Amino acid sequence: MNVNNASNDKDARHAERMQRKKAVVDEKIAAAQIERGVLLVNTGNGKGKSSAAFGLVARALGHGMKVGVVQFIKGRSDTGEEAFFRRQPDVAWHVMGDGFTWDTQDRSRDVATAEAAWAQARALLQDPAIGLVVLDELNIALKYRYLEVTQVVADLLARPSHQHVVVTGRAAAPELIEAADTVTEMALVKHAFANGVKAMPGVEF
Amino acid sequence: MNVNNASNDKDARHAERMQRKKAVVDEKIAAAQIERGVLLVNTGNGKGKSSAAFGLVARALGHGMKVGVVQFIKGRSDTGEEAFFRRQPDVAWHVMGDGFTWDTQDRSRDVATAEAAWAQARALLQDPAIGLVVLDELNIALKYRYLEVTQVVADLLARPSHQHVVVTGRAAAPELIEAADTVTEMALVKHAFANGVKAMPGVEF
Repeated sequence: MNVNNASNDKDARHAERMQRKKAVVDEKIAAAQIERGVLLVNTGNGKGKSSAAFGLVARALGHGMKVGVVQFIKGRSDTGEEAFFRRQPDVAWHVMGDGFTWDTQDRSRDVATAEAAWAQARALLQDPAIGLVVLDELNIALKYRYLEVTQVVADLLARPSHQHVVVTGRAAAPELIEAADTVTEMALVKHAFANGVKAMPGVEF
Repeated sequence: MNVNNASNDKDARHAERMQRKKAVVDEKIAAAQIERGVLLVNTGNGKGKSSAAFGLVARALGHGMKVGVVQFIKGRSDTGEEAFFRRQPDVAWHVMGDGFTWDTQDRSRDVATAEAAWAQARALLQDPAIGLVVLDELNIALKYRYLEVTQVVADLLARPSHQHVVVTGRAAAPELIEAADTVTEMALVKHAFANGVKAMPGVEF
């Protein structure tokens, strides 16, 4: 077999393999025909939970939707996402947390803050004009039991049927994962931080 | 012990736990002082690899950076992210792929397309005015060996020192993971698709 034949064989095997893949994918696409809003949860210890939610904000804006964002834990006041999306007329951006919980050291104040944030979230979840709601770091408020997960799930499931919601944060509650349509675990493989790299603008905030 | 005391105890324990957490986090932050561009890889079978990259685009734009995006595999022409980011003056958006590989069934054409896309990527990686480069679905082009991973890694490492890069796609090459600073495995926990929900605008594209 000369080189050209080997190359032709490789191309033929590739085409055959791709043909099989295409058939499987086409069949799955044909089967998925329900159109409705989906509830997504981005959890895990890795990077990308909030940034994936902000990517969906861009995606939704590109389709002409209106978007509401509630940040339950405010880490810092100089984030690129807040600066950028506050300039977009179709985005309502609400920062409700006042510092990472280990900065406040005051559980009662954290509960009150989380409850005020949930009231804001509920208003978005009751507004059919909003196509996508981002509840950033809600999982942290649930993890520390600042909010009641049963009530949160009930409010999420009562939203308009076409509305999408993304919930982010580590350690998502089992009740929320059960209620969700799409759940991703962002797992940490490695992080620049471990090699002494500072949190860089444009990447970490 | 009455109810008020129990509540005070709970608050005190919470404050103590948070104090310890804060000390650990503060120490880590103090240790991480290197400022440079980072190479991120978003891989795995779950949702959020590309959307997390697009979230970083928003984040970088909020900090006044210029951004370049190369899409190595073009799934569809009506994505929200493309519509939205093409409206942003500081974004250069290049769609180089012409269909998922299993739609083209033609290996030689795919190789030529990937090589043209890499030439575009290299131009961004040599431009110090670009703060963030997104190489969307590059991992797929590497997986099918449309591109040589050694050359790709060499070009990535030769970029300007302050430039951030995000590479997305399933099945990232070990050589790329080794070269990267931050790697996240987006693991599939569940997906709406499995319950018959169609790919929804604002969520899947």
